Amino acid sequence: MLNIILLSGGSGSRLWPLSNDARSKQFLKVLRDEGGEGQSMVQRTFSMLDKIPLEKNIVVATCASQKSSIDIQLTDAEYDVVIEPERRDTAPAIMLAAAYLAWEKHASLDDTVVVMPIDTYASQVYYDNLVNLDKAVQSDVAELILQGAQPTYPSEKFGYIVFDPASEGMVRKVSCFVEKPPEPEAQRLIDEGALWNCGVFAFKLNHLMGILHAYTDLQDFDSLRDAYRQLPKNSFDYEVVEKADSVAAIKYEGEWKDLGTWNTLTEEMCDFSAGKVLCDETCSNTHVINETNLPMVVAGLSDAVVVATPDGILVSDKETSAHIKPLVSKAAESRPMYESRQWGEYKVISKEESEGQAFSLEKILIVKPGKQLSYQKHHSRSEVWTITSGKGEVVLDDQVKPVEYGSVVFIEPGTKHAVRALDDDLHIVEVQLGANLVEEDIERYGFYWND
Amino acid sequence: MLNIILLSGGSGSRLWPLSNDARSKQFLKVLRDEGGEGQSMVQRTFSMLDKIPLEKNIVVATCASQKSSIDIQLTDAEYDVVIEPERRDTAPAIMLAAAYLAWEKHASLDDTVVVMPIDTYASQVYYDNLVNLDKAVQSDVAELILQGAQPTYPSEKFGYIVFDPASEGMVRKVSCFVEKPPEPEAQRLIDEGALWNCGVFAFKLNHLMGILHAYTDLQDFDSLRDAYRQLPKNSFDYEVVEKADSVAAIKYEGEWKDLGTWNTLTEEMCDFSAGKVLCDETCSNTHVINETNLPMVVAGLSDAVVVATPDGILVSDKETSAHIKPLVSKAAESRPMYESRQWGEYKVISKEESEGQAFSLEKILIVKPGKQLSYQKHHSRSEVWTITSGKGEVVLDDQVKPVEYGSVVFIEPGTKHAVRALDDDLHIVEVQLGANLVEEDIERYGFYWND
Repeated sequence: MLNIILLSGGSGSRLWPLSNDARSKQFLKVLRDEGGEGQSMVQRTFSMLDKIPLEKNIVVATCASQKSSIDIQLTDAEYDVVIEPERRDTAPAIMLAAAYLAWEKHASLDDTVVVMPIDTYASQVYYDNLVNLDKAVQSDVAELILQGAQPTYPSEKFGYIVFDPASEGMVRKVSCFVEKPPEPEAQRLIDEGALWNCGVFAFKLNHLMGILHAYTDLQDFDSLRDAYRQLPKNSFDYEVVEKADSVAAIKYEGEWKDLGTWNTLTEEMCDFSAGKVLCDETCSNTHVINETNLPMVVAGLSDAVVVATPDGILVSDKETSAHIKPLVSKAAESRPMYESRQWGEYKVISKEESEGQAFSLEKILIVKPGKQLSYQKHHSRSEVWTITSGKGEVVLDDQVKPVEYGSVVFIEPGTKHAVRALDDDLHIVEVQLGANLVEEDIERYGFYWND
Repeated sequence: MLNIILLSGGSGSRLWPLSNDARSKQFLKVLRDEGGEGQSMVQRTFSMLDKIPLEKNIVVATCASQKSSIDIQLTDAEYDVVIEPERRDTAPAIMLAAAYLAWEKHASLDDTVVVMPIDTYASQVYYDNLVNLDKAVQSDVAELILQGAQPTYPSEKFGYIVFDPASEGMVRKVSCFVEKPPEPEAQRLIDEGALWNCGVFAFKLNHLMGILHAYTDLQDFDSLRDAYRQLPKNSFDYEVVEKADSVAAIKYEGEWKDLGTWNTLTEEMCDFSAGKVLCDETCSNTHVINETNLPMVVAGLSDAVVVATPDGILVSDKETSAHIKPLVSKAAESRPMYESRQWGEYKVISKEESEGQAFSLEKILIVKPGKQLSYQKHHSRSEVWTITSGKGEVVLDDQVKPVEYGSVVFIEPGTKHAVRALDDDLHIVEVQLGANLVEEDIERYGFYWND
């Protein structure tokens, strides 16, 4: 059995405004699957892994805010999700996932575990190589076996895996790692056969459990999760890779990309425009995404990217777009303006502010047929719901009443409330009023109706 | 007494999305007055005319949709507005304004009338020249006296005033007009002393009233307005200028521009950005206007214009922006998404559509202190109002009730309703529901409260 831990993290501010805290880049459906349908990096990775001829346990290690995006996108896949209770870097997240494999999935301690990013863009060979990583681990070639990519240029942005010159064959001994070297050194390393570090690590489950036991004697998953703060706040590289007695690596030759900037992402996008966009023939190599319902006209641009969403508007030269992070962190809203949820989605359509303080916030909620919002209350805001489409039921402090097109519901602060859609999408215009209009002002009481 | 008819027309789709049917380019406050405050072309024209040392009657000839924009922008000026009952080209509009001067303002038939566009961008000399036009008219040099601008390049887009070679002096006899000649011909005309036609025409009131009487015997303004359809649907150039027995022109040397495209308009804009915009230092000669409340980041653009408003988003190379009209007419909403009104303003914040048909539309209305919406009813839509700021009064079928922050008002189709703000701005989130969500579904009953 091959155990795979997929790391799904990151807020992707370099892909703002398409990504936000609730919608990381790996969930954006900007790629195409074989049938021509929109596909996210997460979906692509699962479809690639699916083709590996091995029995697999797949665990996605992620944070709470991504759980629902993962479940929405992976309806046909088999996998488990392990949620880190708080952000503490990659080492404890991977340890928690490994403990889950050992204690909840009862994986054999001799089985191979492969850790890899969920958002890499690579060819099938990269995934097929997991068979070779497994073989190398099982042959005890080294404590850790890495997959490294053949560099295509002397990048200053990646880490390099440097081989022991004496070692030969498909699985070669690693002598050291060099992080983000200047270009001349990068070129020298490449000339000597060094590879880019892809963040793919294979080892026996036993190895990582041994490291975990140095920090805790706990033997069950729930207790470990509760004691998560006791684990070291450290990266897997420092905590595990650099301390390993022996490391070897396998070379991967093929496409390998971090689609984390508009520049790299648009290269893989099939369409030049998406949404309500009119681009004229004077545009060249320009990608436009419009997720607002404002009509958009783009003319006379070259090598540019234009993206408009409820979170904001970006217009940038592609080259420059790799460096917009500081601007975005200044510009971006402090809250996501769009989110997909298990029950449907919401979009903030307006926010009225006075002296930097919001005094009203308007949303459109779309609840999917049969789905419900959790029973909840807000301490300091009231909400006015106007149903604009569909039929459903609203409960206010245990009083259930039917609602439909045209119904208006007033929810006082402190009133427990929930809503569910019946046979069709239920559209609700929500007006929030109060002094503290944040998602966090919420107390949840599970589901009111049986799910 | 100098009579001035200012023509205010045009929907300005070349300045979309900043201009729309209710907000033509001449009302956009993109210029600066001497005190550094935002100034529109209309305001600039009035401040220039104000400096002419002559007694003046000013009449603005325009259409109904512009009346309130004019009144909002010209609070300190003295002028009358003559509204064309329907769009019938410039000749009847100018005839109606002339009739207003003669019959309502009792201007002398021997007085000079100057017709000019309201949205020209020119220096003070251009306006001061009206004194010379008046003198030439009163000296009976010709039936019509024009002001022409000294060309600065052989434009193919303008009309040219060609002089009689035998005529000399400040007021020269015109031999013919040439519309939009190809460049070589334009150059030849310029070499021979031709001027650009600025659309400034001076004549005795009597002259135009004579032409009017060829079409109608009516002798009072209201009757003429009611009989507006009887007037020829023709331009002033064809109906009056080309038929004149004698035409002369005065040369104007100085800045003269049609700020009707982004390319020309941005040249006169003082600021490179307005609204919620972060532009980095990699941008050059790029103008950005953001009137939405979406944050905007612009990076690495050169010679571009980026404009986002509730009506839409335009991103264009400046040069190309002069040619976007066909794209805009395809992209633009069929209704204005933002309007200033006498009572305040509204903005459409969302529109939910199904199969191209809107089933709900969300607006934010801001009613200014002491102002009111007219008493009105809608036949096929209902409205839900949530008050998000301020205090006011709402009347529903003659029942008055106070409203404030948090109040919710449900307005059924057919219910007469109005609202007024008390001491502060009254903010209302309006959700419109129904099958026919257009501004035109309205029946008005004047003001409910004394104004």
